[in-house]
Amino acid sequence: MADTNTSLSTRSIFSDIAPIKFEGPDTENQLAYRYYNKDQIVLGKRMEDHLRMAVCYWHSFCWDGFDIFGAGTFDRPWHGGANDRAAADLKMAAAFDFFSKLGLPYYCFHDVDVTEASDTPDALSNNFKRSSDNLAAYQEETGTKLLWGTANLFSHPRYAAGGLTNPDPEVAACAIRQIRDCLEATHRLGGSNYVLWGGREGYDTLLNTDLNRELENFGRFLSMVVEHKHKIGFTGKILIEPKPHEPMYHQYDFDTATIYGFLSRFDLLGEVHVNIEPNHATLSGHSFAHEVATAVSLGMMGSIDINSGNYQNGWDTDQFNLDSRDITLALLELLPSGGLDTGGFNFDAKVRRQSSEPVDLFYGHIGGADALARALLAAADLVERGQISEMKQKRYAGWDGPLGQNMTSDQASLASIADQAATAGLNGTHSSGHQEYLENLVARSLK
Amino acid sequence: MADTNTSLSTRSIFSDIAPIKFEGPDTENQLAYRYYNKDQIVLGKRMEDHLRMAVCYWHSFCWDGFDIFGAGTFDRPWHGGANDRAAADLKMAAAFDFFSKLGLPYYCFHDVDVTEASDTPDALSNNFKRSSDNLAAYQEETGTKLLWGTANLFSHPRYAAGGLTNPDPEVAACAIRQIRDCLEATHRLGGSNYVLWGGREGYDTLLNTDLNRELENFGRFLSMVVEHKHKIGFTGKILIEPKPHEPMYHQYDFDTATIYGFLSRFDLLGEVHVNIEPNHATLSGHSFAHEVATAVSLGMMGSIDINSGNYQNGWDTDQFNLDSRDITLALLELLPSGGLDTGGFNFDAKVRRQSSEPVDLFYGHIGGADALARALLAAADLVERGQISEMKQKRYAGWDGPLGQNMTSDQASLASIADQAATAGLNGTHSSGHQEYLENLVARSLK
Amino acid sequence: MADTNTSLSTRSIFSDIAPIKFEGPDTENQLAYRYYNKDQIVLGKRMEDHLRMAVCYWHSFCWDGFDIFGAGTFDRPWHGGANDRAAADLKMAAAFDFFSKLGLPYYCFHDVDVTEASDTPDALSNNFKRSSDNLAAYQEETGTKLLWGTANLFSHPRYAAGGLTNPDPEVAACAIRQIRDCLEATHRLGGSNYVLWGGREGYDTLLNTDLNRELENFGRFLSMVVEHKHKIGFTGKILIEPKPHEPMYHQYDFDTATIYGFLSRFDLLGEVHVNIEPNHATLSGHSFAHEVATAVSLGMMGSIDINSGNYQNGWDTDQFNLDSRDITLALLELLPSGGLDTGGFNFDAKVRRQSSEPVDLFYGHIGGADALARALLAAADLVERGQISEMKQKRYAGWDGPLGQNMTSDQASLASIADQAATAGLNGTHSSGHQEYLENLVARSLK
Amino acid sequence: MADTNTSLSTRSIFSDIAPIKFEGPDTENQLAYRYYNKDQIVLGKRMEDHLRMAVCYWHSFCWDGFDIFGAGTFDRPWHGGANDRAAADLKMAAAFDFFSKLGLPYYCFHDVDVTEASDTPDALSNNFKRSSDNLAAYQEETGTKLLWGTANLFSHPRYAAGGLTNPDPEVAACAIRQIRDCLEATHRLGGSNYVLWGGREGYDTLLNTDLNRELENFGRFLSMVVEHKHKIGFTGKILIEPKPHEPMYHQYDFDTATIYGFLSRFDLLGEVHVNIEPNHATLSGHSFAHEVATAVSLGMMGSIDINSGNYQNGWDTDQFNLDSRDITLALLELLPSGGLDTGGFNFDAKVRRQSSEPVDLFYGHIGGADALARALLAAADLVERGQISEMKQKRYAGWDGPLGQNMTSDQASLASIADQAATAGLNGTHSSGHQEYLENLVARSLK
Repeated sequence: MADTNTSLSTRSIFSDIAPIKFEGPDTENQLAYRYYNKDQIVLGKRMEDHLRMAVCYWHSFCWDGFDIFGAGTFDRPWHGGANDRAAADLKMAAAFDFFSKLGLPYYCFHDVDVTEASDTPDALSNNFKRSSDNLAAYQEETGTKLLWGTANLFSHPRYAAGGLTNPDPEVAACAIRQIRDCLEATHRLGGSNYVLWGGREGYDTLLNTDLNRELENFGRFLSMVVEHKHKIGFTGKILIEPKPHEPMYHQYDFDTATIYGFLSRFDLLGEVHVNIEPNHATLSGHSFAHEVATAVSLGMMGSIDINSGNYQNGWDTDQFNLDSRDITLALLELLPSGGLDTGGFNFDAKVRRQSSEPVDLFYGHIGGADALARALLAAADLVERGQISEMKQKRYAGWDGPLGQNMTSDQASLASIADQAATAGLNGTHSSGHQEYLENLVARSLK
Repeated sequence: MADTNTSLSTRSIFSDIAPIKFEGPDTENQLAYRYYNKDQIVLGKRMEDHLRMAVCYWHSFCWDGFDIFGAGTFDRPWHGGANDRAAADLKMAAAFDFFSKLGLPYYCFHDVDVTEASDTPDALSNNFKRSSDNLAAYQEETGTKLLWGTANLFSHPRYAAGGLTNPDPEVAACAIRQIRDCLEATHRLGGSNYVLWGGREGYDTLLNTDLNRELENFGRFLSMVVEHKHKIGFTGKILIEPKPHEPMYHQYDFDTATIYGFLSRFDLLGEVHVNIEPNHATLSGHSFAHEVATAVSLGMMGSIDINSGNYQNGWDTDQFNLDSRDITLALLELLPSGGLDTGGFNFDAKVRRQSSEPVDLFYGHIGGADALARALLAAADLVERGQISEMKQKRYAGWDGPLGQNMTSDQASLASIADQAATAGLNGTHSSGHQEYLENLVARSLK
Repeated sequence: MADTNTSLSTRSIFSDIAPIKFEGPDTENQLAYRYYNKDQIVLGKRMEDHLRMAVCYWHSFCWDGFDIFGAGTFDRPWHGGANDRAAADLKMAAAFDFFSKLGLPYYCFHDVDVTEASDTPDALSNNFKRSSDNLAAYQEETGTKLLWGTANLFSHPRYAAGGLTNPDPEVAACAIRQIRDCLEATHRLGGSNYVLWGGREGYDTLLNTDLNRELENFGRFLSMVVEHKHKIGFTGKILIEPKPHEPMYHQYDFDTATIYGFLSRFDLLGEVHVNIEPNHATLSGHSFAHEVATAVSLGMMGSIDINSGNYQNGWDTDQFNLDSRDITLALLELLPSGGLDTGGFNFDAKVRRQSSEPVDLFYGHIGGADALARALLAAADLVERGQISEMKQKRYAGWDGPLGQNMTSDQASLASIADQAATAGLNGTHSSGHQEYLENLVARSLK
Repeated sequence: MADTNTSLSTRSIFSDIAPIKFEGPDTENQLAYRYYNKDQIVLGKRMEDHLRMAVCYWHSFCWDGFDIFGAGTFDRPWHGGANDRAAADLKMAAAFDFFSKLGLPYYCFHDVDVTEASDTPDALSNNFKRSSDNLAAYQEETGTKLLWGTANLFSHPRYAAGGLTNPDPEVAACAIRQIRDCLEATHRLGGSNYVLWGGREGYDTLLNTDLNRELENFGRFLSMVVEHKHKIGFTGKILIEPKPHEPMYHQYDFDTATIYGFLSRFDLLGEVHVNIEPNHATLSGHSFAHEVATAVSLGMMGSIDINSGNYQNGWDTDQFNLDSRDITLALLELLPSGGLDTGGFNFDAKVRRQSSEPVDLFYGHIGGADALARALLAAADLVERGQISEMKQKRYAGWDGPLGQNMTSDQASLASIADQAATAGLNGTHSSGHQEYLENLVARSLK
């Protein structure tokens, strides 16, 4: 059991905030859900089971509001304590109280989020062991479940040039140790997935980078992660996370398509999936829907770090995503594939640095949850109406006709098709794609 | 033999311009090469053989200076003629006169560049047959060789929704016929490569797009192209060209890493290579050097469409690339791999719409050739000095030591490495990457 | 009166489409408005009078679907005719039939949109005279009004280096003649505004540009436009349109703040206002709301070219804007200032090149009109609730207190304030900006 | 006098590095200048007097290599000390030793860079008084001069919502106190300029922002800064620094043209100038040369924070600028105006986070200084040859002819020019802008 005193004292932080409930679109209560009604059945499934929302530990409980130009602005009651360990414990109590108050089913963490600062890998290993026992106790107490765990291989100075792709094997070995510890803890905690975010797996300049060696090491060690997962009986998914840049000048996990090639190269297709983030999608020149569609079409869909950037700033702003229309377009790609399996929607989002009160954390998550729920309702409506999928099917119908069947048969060759085109005098013409009509259908279903 | 009259009349267009010669860095003559000295030996090879420069047909001879906001500004003597066919012939005469005057060894073309406008696929097929015979004659007369040919599958309205990935099999069949004709012509003309640029292979909205089907068709038909190449005995490379967007909202050949995954998926690795373009690289969020390094490391390097965008405009501006430093960084990735094989540097660049005189075409190409030559000299100097590669080797030396060897041995596992890290108390530290030192080395070698 | 035959024959183009009516959110009719209910009273004003929507002539009636990589894809019945003049007349009949069918109150045009192609400035002047008489007749017949007219100073090759900022005074004189003719015609046609879009007023390279001279000419000639407007008694607004790039590398009317400085420099504040476009806003690194807020705060608000880009493509895609949330944020800045005065919402938007059927034009405009109406309803709801403006007022309340009053009094100086801060030991602290709370309020009001 | 012991102990940090000397392009010494030869006469002036280079205090002496994703990586001998004050003193000793070793004439600082952390405004005021006395002593001892000082109004949490534009007057009063103290210290230290960087002057969301009030306060308080400058007899320039975003979503000092409008609005033209930074220029959609040309043409040129971003990352990377060609283009705009007056080239650049050794600071600055010197040599060569300015003059020659003179005379009106165009049948045509020719001229002069 987690330390009761800490736990109680933290609960008092949020003691003036009642558990967040669904009250419907017209409520005037800003501390209630307007659309997220967890037991509402949508396309035959509870909303909660569709969305599997999670709160992340780092943005809301570790970050103090600092940025590269200034110090922390948040005066969090749980940042402090008699000593580092006490502070970490207080933070954990606050976090689980928050998870519970929100009534969302999952959370996510990095190893270093849940421990005090650790001077050495040994210390981290020990501290993390202790903290993950506390997590287990809190999970049992509150019913909050673990969507995924991950080892932080980017904050410690040793990882400046990467973890698994570091030029120095000593650093890579430290990374592997952290992964082993964290993967095993995630397994013990009943986590649904294990994530590797390669924020420092990349390069700042090609002039000092052996691209091939780094990627080969990455492939080799990732294979070991997969092997270990099976060895310990972890049945969750191993996920890597597309991101093009930042903190590195170039990151290897650039986008979903790039990761597909990488997994293919190292024979890891089917074993490793992606954790897609809208803000990363847009930074790589894609829409959120594109990344989801690509992952679905390549069998790589894992989980979603739901957030949003803004289109004016060229870095990861990790805002709560209130753009229900944009999320609807992504869900339209996701739902027909059966939706998320082990994955969920993790709020990898932070309140703005100016939103300095603890209550702002509630506003952020409530707004994010409602935007997701609203998008789910819209996407489900579109799926049920079936007009979009019908128009799509009609558009490609020619491939089911004689010419299309001929062209895609095993006997077809460039010459046979070209000859057929010449003989038949084929003179294909364009038919309208009716994009505006389709976009209006989406608008109509938005709630 | 090409029509002598046309040929002669066109020559008179450039008759006041003497063949462009190398005159050294200090010449005041703007119609001379300052750095491109084709017979100069660099790293044991003639400069001409390193760079294999080509002039493209479309930007310099077909384009009239129009853009989306305005009509053509160029008053080209070869745009016109008694009728469409005569105009096409005049254009060809002008083009070969230009190629010869520049003294560059190669050129490139699309099928529709070299013919009159054709109402139907049949007409195009016939017109192209006639025009490619003329090309053969000009090649023989002038000694200019074909770097690559390609079928234009994006300008005709039928290709609005793609060629090989079109929703309509009739359109795809027309595309295949054009490819067949053009691949065979390229073979007859002794082309070194055959290119497929997928400008319309992509989508404008996911709402009407069956991603999976389009990509499967793309893979299937590309396999047929490869098969046909072998059947007819074409020994050049089949190249596809990374580009993220434009004209489509999203293009399937997004970047080199994406193409790697696609080729891998359809078992085409080794059979298809990439034609890299700096302007496309930067539009996809990469440096030119990155795309080259990626292609080299994945065994996909084919050819280069040398040009440059500017960093303020978010579309393909296809400018002549005068940024020798940027090209040097790309050559540093290319030269150690042995350089270009069947590929070359094709000036896929156009003079600005305001550069309306024919002589501007000379300034553009001369500047581009000199920038390339200058970069070659700098990169060769860096390779010969060897400091950069030495520092790189030292940076990764740990992987050749006992720990590194252990970690990369077949016996290693996540657990064994993690245990070793724990037992040995490994506490890896960061070593400086000395990026500024390396960048200074590059600056020092710039000419 | 316009030629009745032409008019009738064109009407048959859209003869199968009934006038578009408001049918409410739940209609299954894709050729009806769901939210745009022109007579509905919102904040005390008819919806039609708030939005003053206009259809533009160029995208829907002149453009044939060509782009820089391919030929036109649209088979418009009104593109063609016995000769150029007949084609122009047919196009005009089609346009006014379309305006009427949509039931939107306004339209906009460039001089060259409404005439046949003209070989010389003299021809253009004559052709435009004739065409503008036809416009007058159609306006009278249909009741459609002119939101604004503008002279096209970017499509003709003579304008490659600009109109009013051209290095050659002969070109600038031609531009001025076109403006004079078009401004006077706009006046005759009862236009509400006159627009100058400076698409070629800018530069491609500084190397051949005399920035100062070009801007001085721009200022001088714009002053003459203003003077002429007063001379002829035109009471509409003169508008210039912020756009950062494209077609030029850099455009002088970069954004609203830049234009403010330019107008201030040439003493034109109050005389010239801005025509804001969301797609231009985002290309210049701003949100749509930012440009509106800036124009409102600087007293420069004129009109709006409503459209949208997408955030993945770095050029002007001119899509119909269906992002009601984004428009709501802009309206929140606009409505409290009293809304649009002589301006309106002009659909400077085009259906996608693949949307090749005439009916797609209806879908595009209906979707756009509904998105605007939906945003108006949401913004009005937010204004009526008053929570956002109340929170804003509270946030700045200190400036109405003694310290704030002191600091902003005429007696205050750097020294007096600094001394007061020191003496009082002021140690200001940050208060939460509650951004997420505010964003949730907006989401709540979205329809 | 600064504490001798500290000073000596720090000197030992760099004791193995000899003063950096000019050794010419061919030296193999990486700790020598290849192009920066301070006494070399260029266009009649010493290179040192042209470039007036400065080292900045913050990036090289305060920053420990942290970023938003990870902790500091630099093990600086001067980060540490018996207590905070001792650490600040050690840092100062190290900084001046570095300035001297480099042999560059200037440095720049923020108030908080040179002091220990201060709990309150009172403490900061006192600490800064003491530290600025130490700066005076070091300046005298080493001969290094102050290019500019500035008050840091963005790092302390109180400035989360801005300094001079803060919604809370208490915070603004604290900001004003800091500015007063720092401006007076800059004056005492003989600084050439005083800078205000408005990193937090802007907004994160319009929903909580009173744009007008914030800008009016900004204008009012900036006027007070100017007034105070005159009162105390400071003859240096007051500079503000264009930057579009980061850390704020939107910053008021977006770019030079925006600042022009702002200064004009508050009647500050001529009193406030700009401090231009290439990395900020590109983030705002401009080239470095554009920002310089704009500032020169509007009489706003102040100083330059020389650095560079990379074109793949959308945030301020503050790299050393080794792109001599790009700098040459900027100098081509600057030199004809007489060059920098009180301004200089301040290396607002930081070594990469991976460049963790103190010696990397030398490599960074040496490379940056050489790139500047090389650009100066190239730009001077272009100015001396005069070809570019001659071509420019010829391009606009028409404005000096009768038509141009007529059009720009006081008697001209829209009608008179339009009539003249009609009467004379003016039919202006485009002449080539010869961009490629001009770019080749630049390439030719690059060293």
